[in-house]
Amino acid sequence: MESSPIKALTFDVFGTVVDWRGSIAREAEAVARRKGIKGDWAKFADAWRKLYQPAMQKVRSGDRPWVALDTLHRENLDRLREEYGLGSLSEAEMVALNLAWHRLDPWPDAVEGLTRLKQKFILATLSNGNVRLMVDMAKRAGLPWDVILGAEVARAYKPDPRAYRAAAELLMLDPGECLMVAAHAADLKAARECGFRTAFVWRPLEYGPERAEAARPVHDFDYLADDFVDLARQLGC
Amino acid sequence: MESSPIKALTFDVFGTVVDWRGSIAREAEAVARRKGIKGDWAKFADAWRKLYQPAMQKVRSGDRPWVALDTLHRENLDRLREEYGLGSLSEAEMVALNLAWHRLDPWPDAVEGLTRLKQKFILATLSNGNVRLMVDMAKRAGLPWDVILGAEVARAYKPDPRAYRAAAELLMLDPGECLMVAAHAADLKAARECGFRTAFVWRPLEYGPERAEAARPVHDFDYLADDFVDLARQLGC
Repeated sequence: MESSPIKALTFDVFGTVVDWRGSIAREAEAVARRKGIKGDWAKFADAWRKLYQPAMQKVRSGDRPWVALDTLHRENLDRLREEYGLGSLSEAEMVALNLAWHRLDPWPDAVEGLTRLKQKFILATLSNGNVRLMVDMAKRAGLPWDVILGAEVARAYKPDPRAYRAAAELLMLDPGECLMVAAHAADLKAARECGFRTAFVWRPLEYGPERAEAARPVHDFDYLADDFVDLARQLGC
Repeated sequence: MESSPIKALTFDVFGTVVDWRGSIAREAEAVARRKGIKGDWAKFADAWRKLYQPAMQKVRSGDRPWVALDTLHRENLDRLREEYGLGSLSEAEMVALNLAWHRLDPWPDAVEGLTRLKQKFILATLSNGNVRLMVDMAKRAGLPWDVILGAEVARAYKPDPRAYRAAAELLMLDPGECLMVAAHAADLKAARECGFRTAFVWRPLEYGPERAEAARPVHDFDYLADDFVDLARQLGC
């Protein structure tokens, strides 16, 4: 059986499109410098990110009702406040630091690759980030999305299948007409279980240069790409 | 009390951004010519549009569960089929004609005005059209939306207040930070009741040159604009 043509690309964002670790470290360091706080801000970024999955898990499991990622990020930031010496930050400074997730920098190939892919496909975010976070990030970084979908629109966090299915439904596409693009195998596997096609993009620097993998991992996804420009080339854009 | 600054512009689309009447007439005429069907296709466009409000009203009133506008458009097209001699259209041709709403042309000032407004504000659709319809239209016409909101995301048709409130909530804005832009007073009045600020854009040709108003109607909305370029100028873009 021939597979149906791909109509839309749905993107994981944190780590796949943008460098959350470098960007959060940069933002935290900037506020810390102003306040005279010393610290390892790459480690802080890792610690903040580490609280991300357990926080979403409480929503996925039904332990708590739907809440947007900005709120989870703020709760997690509050948990790290003392450990990282951020006690002297005002409430306004804490709010601003929490919004650092709205100001993440794209990987160097992202805007060019997306711009090429947009000529041929619908480009949708399918991130756990909330709508406003995605809008602010896209405006700042110039990410040319056609539509912001994902967890908040579905009111379900990936890898909950409802997150993927809601995206395909709003796009009026069969899951097999959607290509999930991510740097994370678990996200792609969950999308594949919903019938999506899958593209793994290798982001060796996501967890920092010290933890960079020397070679692209081996996967059995439909596409394996070194970056978005490579993906555009493979998809004939 | 000083009003809070406007952060986002939320747009009505049919009639305000795009010329539905001229575009539908053009699409219907093209298929009719191929099939050798004679008719008044501007009148057909008016007839199709006339069935729009009553169809949505059944959803607003709770008489029927949520259903996307593409489905309502198709039901309404089927009702007009015999009267306009479209009986010889195949199912594929009917599907394609129904999707004419995804291919509406923008008013001549729309892309330039939106592009200017986008530099300063978040631009969101707040239309009764479904997400895929808005995405297809934007890609074809080059409408630079930041985010597609509106009826399908809210699962409520304007002027149901839930449609406006859902948009403000997803944007994480107070309603007073949102400016509703529309060519229709009823839409603006409903938005204003939800706390939105309001901009009336005069589209004298929406219902055709025969029914064009000679002078801009008098309203008490926050802004009155002749087109989107005029609105951009008034908003300092």
